[in-house]
Amino acid sequence: MSKQEFSFPAEAEVIAYMETLSNWGRWGEDDRVGTLNHITDEVRVAAAAMIRTGKAVSLSRDIDPLEADPLHSGIAQVQRFMGLHEVADHLGGEQRRFDAVTEYVGISAHGSNTHIDGLAHYSWEGTNYNGFKESDTTSLFGAKSLSVHQADRGFLTRGVLLDIAALHDVRWLERGHPVTPDELEAAERRQGVTVRPGDAMLIHTGNVEAILTEGPDAPGPAARQAGLHAACLPFLHERGVAVLGNDGIQDVQPSGYGLDLMRPVHTVGLVALGLWLIDNMQLTELAATCRQEQRWEFFFAALPWRMKGVTSSASNPVAVF
Amino acid sequence: MSKQEFSFPAEAEVIAYMETLSNWGRWGEDDRVGTLNHITDEVRVAAAAMIRTGKAVSLSRDIDPLEADPLHSGIAQVQRFMGLHEVADHLGGEQRRFDAVTEYVGISAHGSNTHIDGLAHYSWEGTNYNGFKESDTTSLFGAKSLSVHQADRGFLTRGVLLDIAALHDVRWLERGHPVTPDELEAAERRQGVTVRPGDAMLIHTGNVEAILTEGPDAPGPAARQAGLHAACLPFLHERGVAVLGNDGIQDVQPSGYGLDLMRPVHTVGLVALGLWLIDNMQLTELAATCRQEQRWEFFFAALPWRMKGVTSSASNPVAVF
Amino acid sequence: MSKQEFSFPAEAEVIAYMETLSNWGRWGEDDRVGTLNHITDEVRVAAAAMIRTGKAVSLSRDIDPLEADPLHSGIAQVQRFMGLHEVADHLGGEQRRFDAVTEYVGISAHGSNTHIDGLAHYSWEGTNYNGFKESDTTSLFGAKSLSVHQADRGFLTRGVLLDIAALHDVRWLERGHPVTPDELEAAERRQGVTVRPGDAMLIHTGNVEAILTEGPDAPGPAARQAGLHAACLPFLHERGVAVLGNDGIQDVQPSGYGLDLMRPVHTVGLVALGLWLIDNMQLTELAATCRQEQRWEFFFAALPWRMKGVTSSASNPVAVF
Amino acid sequence: MSKQEFSFPAEAEVIAYMETLSNWGRWGEDDRVGTLNHITDEVRVAAAAMIRTGKAVSLSRDIDPLEADPLHSGIAQVQRFMGLHEVADHLGGEQRRFDAVTEYVGISAHGSNTHIDGLAHYSWEGTNYNGFKESDTTSLFGAKSLSVHQADRGFLTRGVLLDIAALHDVRWLERGHPVTPDELEAAERRQGVTVRPGDAMLIHTGNVEAILTEGPDAPGPAARQAGLHAACLPFLHERGVAVLGNDGIQDVQPSGYGLDLMRPVHTVGLVALGLWLIDNMQLTELAATCRQEQRWEFFFAALPWRMKGVTSSASNPVAVF
Repeated sequence: MSKQEFSFPAEAEVIAYMETLSNWGRWGEDDRVGTLNHITDEVRVAAAAMIRTGKAVSLSRDIDPLEADPLHSGIAQVQRFMGLHEVADHLGGEQRRFDAVTEYVGISAHGSNTHIDGLAHYSWEGTNYNGFKESDTTSLFGAKSLSVHQADRGFLTRGVLLDIAALHDVRWLERGHPVTPDELEAAERRQGVTVRPGDAMLIHTGNVEAILTEGPDAPGPAARQAGLHAACLPFLHERGVAVLGNDGIQDVQPSGYGLDLMRPVHTVGLVALGLWLIDNMQLTELAATCRQEQRWEFFFAALPWRMKGVTSSASNPVAVF
Repeated sequence: MSKQEFSFPAEAEVIAYMETLSNWGRWGEDDRVGTLNHITDEVRVAAAAMIRTGKAVSLSRDIDPLEADPLHSGIAQVQRFMGLHEVADHLGGEQRRFDAVTEYVGISAHGSNTHIDGLAHYSWEGTNYNGFKESDTTSLFGAKSLSVHQADRGFLTRGVLLDIAALHDVRWLERGHPVTPDELEAAERRQGVTVRPGDAMLIHTGNVEAILTEGPDAPGPAARQAGLHAACLPFLHERGVAVLGNDGIQDVQPSGYGLDLMRPVHTVGLVALGLWLIDNMQLTELAATCRQEQRWEFFFAALPWRMKGVTSSASNPVAVF
Repeated sequence: MSKQEFSFPAEAEVIAYMETLSNWGRWGEDDRVGTLNHITDEVRVAAAAMIRTGKAVSLSRDIDPLEADPLHSGIAQVQRFMGLHEVADHLGGEQRRFDAVTEYVGISAHGSNTHIDGLAHYSWEGTNYNGFKESDTTSLFGAKSLSVHQADRGFLTRGVLLDIAALHDVRWLERGHPVTPDELEAAERRQGVTVRPGDAMLIHTGNVEAILTEGPDAPGPAARQAGLHAACLPFLHERGVAVLGNDGIQDVQPSGYGLDLMRPVHTVGLVALGLWLIDNMQLTELAATCRQEQRWEFFFAALPWRMKGVTSSASNPVAVF
Repeated sequence: MSKQEFSFPAEAEVIAYMETLSNWGRWGEDDRVGTLNHITDEVRVAAAAMIRTGKAVSLSRDIDPLEADPLHSGIAQVQRFMGLHEVADHLGGEQRRFDAVTEYVGISAHGSNTHIDGLAHYSWEGTNYNGFKESDTTSLFGAKSLSVHQADRGFLTRGVLLDIAALHDVRWLERGHPVTPDELEAAERRQGVTVRPGDAMLIHTGNVEAILTEGPDAPGPAARQAGLHAACLPFLHERGVAVLGNDGIQDVQPSGYGLDLMRPVHTVGLVALGLWLIDNMQLTELAATCRQEQRWEFFFAALPWRMKGVTSSASNPVAVF
């Protein structure tokens, strides 16, 4: 398969995805969870059958307040303030044989950390998924209509890893490598797995490992990253992907389009499909485990906070084989 | 079964639990996850068999920054600051057809929220679980030895609900009701279930529902709450409970002992057993589902943050039937 | 003087103040400090002559993180997180004979606290003082054009207290009492003082003391408060007031106009005049001192933070007699 | 004057300063403001006479959340979260002709910023100034006994700049240059000024300018800095200095002593003398102005927050000539 053969859609065609791939109204006028509707009770039952050896693998990197922006995303901010000797504090200064500590922790979640993007994160022409208004999100009251707490039952489903780095027999794809639907299908064939409705589809590009090893190739948003090309959006829609995860920010950067389509997988995915995203996952150990087990499907668990009014959630997704 | 018949242990006996129920060294000198060692691969495989209908129930309450301390615990603090119009900000003020919002969120986790207590939270005479020092936790560097990020593979195991409120045929136990091991065993018999190694054992007292409905009976730490009596600690140890969850703070308040044993389930549980706790869960819907399904065991999922240096994690545990 | 005799301006007239009282361009196209231009070197020299006995009076209330919203403004948030034992932390756990503590403090300044409103705080039809754009203030970069750090030399000038409560011989004015220019002039006559260019003009209504003593008469923005009526705006402009301070939020609430003019002293003052405001001052001790000294002019000092990008500054103004 | 001639005190002598230079009890058993007692009404009256031309100079650097640690102190943290479109938020989404923005700002004040060190910041053998206990400062309740809000009337007094860089005819002293009392007196003679009780004594070493220009010579606390040697402590005590300010952290680094005396001007100054410190001032413009005016005394204003429970206050001190 050579890159040259793939014919990328024109900008107008990608913008048309906002209509042609839309899930608006599909699950009711008031639906607030989008593609999570694909995770039915039956999907959960089928996913349980993936647990065979019981081996568990974390798909998150550590969140370290002492190294707040390891991926140089430029907007990460992690804080931790310890409250020591809580017992003496509560008991009027009296020391007891036991003691407790507590803390305040704070996160700007849409940054370097492994995090979930909720449906209020992106808008297109003032509108979020299912026609909710961008202006429903305000400074004072937060994201009123599409907060992540809507996903209260979490993402418990089958996970499938498509290992695009392995497809090309490299540790990580070149910076700026656009993953195409041809490559997704080639990975399916190579791995003997087919993405189906309700799946958490994870894409291994090696991008996080590349940045942690060699640094970004430019500061902030200018850095090139491997990721999905907008051309993959019809695949995501047709297969009924419930959750899309990536060791990067999903979108190949640059996207190949103008600024309005700077991040089309985010824009079309979140707004038209209502597709939940998990950015900056750690997929290196998962890819190794899949190779070792010769199995690229597993039970997948990720549980967003039930915090009202927010568009993000730090997350520690786990795969169980 | 009448309360009077139960013989509560003397204070010295509970303090002796620090030795007699100790798991220190049991899983190695450097073990940092305590009772999570009970959750073996085999336990996860067995837990998968609990998923039969696929029905999922959230066990967390919403975290609402606009109502930061619903349980009046006195130390809760939840913050959310929205960053609106992120795209224009990044592109030098230029408006595009798409837009994004982001936010900072902050939590004092050991408060009203549904949260996990990690093993660094409590100490006894300057020492945490497995002999790690309380002084390993500092203002600047946080909890160095026993941070919650050690639990990177999460809590994915069998969950068992012991419904003590239902045992007494009430919506919630009286404030200050001490749950005894006799009651735990009576609930097991009534429900036809037996707690076994690796389980997430959840106790339904109705406490959270009582406070949300009728308010606390006193402000702050003085409020009486139903919860486990220290006498349950041997049960927790013998059965190999991996995770203890409760619609309250585990410990009955007052504990029935002096200030050193103000919260013995926390102190002995966290320090001697290395037992992970989940406070302030929402168990009302779970109890109703168990009753309806006539099944008090289920697949249990809770995934602490992989944040380094902290003793807590907000959490949204989910049960799947 | 009776209230009925005063003829309040119509809404259109107040809106016309945006033009008729405008200081735009008066101190240059790029001026960013507005009425602080009235505080010339000569004004500072004249102000120094006010210091005669050396008695100093604080005009701020305490900011107490344990009582974050004493005036029930609904948006106050004050935080303090202590870092204890900083020395041991820095020296790798080693205890020394000396120790240090540090802390993080956080404030939502436009709330209950005594605070300065900078010129970026309010806009009218998308525009701030001197034609700067409201859109110059963004989530990511803050208030780029009119941040409070522009006032780097502080407010060091003559202060004048107009004691409207004393004029009516009450401890505090009735909730919702609109202070008129007639009353300002009557207070000047009664006190034997005349407001002149560069002055910090402070208005004692007794409002803060009323709320602290008797509570607000309604929650949040609905509460009635004594304060300046929009009719005072020409007085502020003609006299060349540099800083306006008040034991309330300047504006009488309700303002007597529609929602567009909900807070006309803020809107016209900040946007048209470029007038710096100090809300929620503690003026009780000052009023008593003035009465005792039979002197309503003094040296006035308030020093905003030099924090870039912000529209507010907590402040502890001090008067010296 | 050559450095070699100066005989530095031995470590034991400096430790003895804790007794010999102590102000404990001098202003009463319950005194909480230490050397601010030197700023009497008479001192304020005399200070007013310093205002002759009215020229004002800010002595603070900007605090920029986008550049949180310009001096690489390693513990600075400045945050700003904007709340945009506050009006629409409050009025239920309704747009009006006026709008407002607000923000949350947070500071770890004992860092790179120009900030005041309050008397609870340092302790010696568990004790703060005047015998208050270090344990009066707790995670939950903050600095109960010696919070900066005690200084409610601010620092309004005479300021004196001793320009040690100019004494040596350099832009900045060498990193690690220890300023001795000989140099303080030589600067007094050269400038024709004498430090007297109640003064804010400012020391120009050029240290901040050196770091901003050339960077620190090592990361964090290891960096050498010019500053006062412990040998200056008797001078500070004898002259009755009320406030000590510096374009650095007061103490020369390294101090020339062991770890217990890592920062003796902080330790002895704050604990024994009760001396208020202002770290990391911007003194470059002040030094130039003094040289130009041939006058090294001026009116000095600095106003700590009235925040309860804290040991620090960001500050923008201003000098008026």
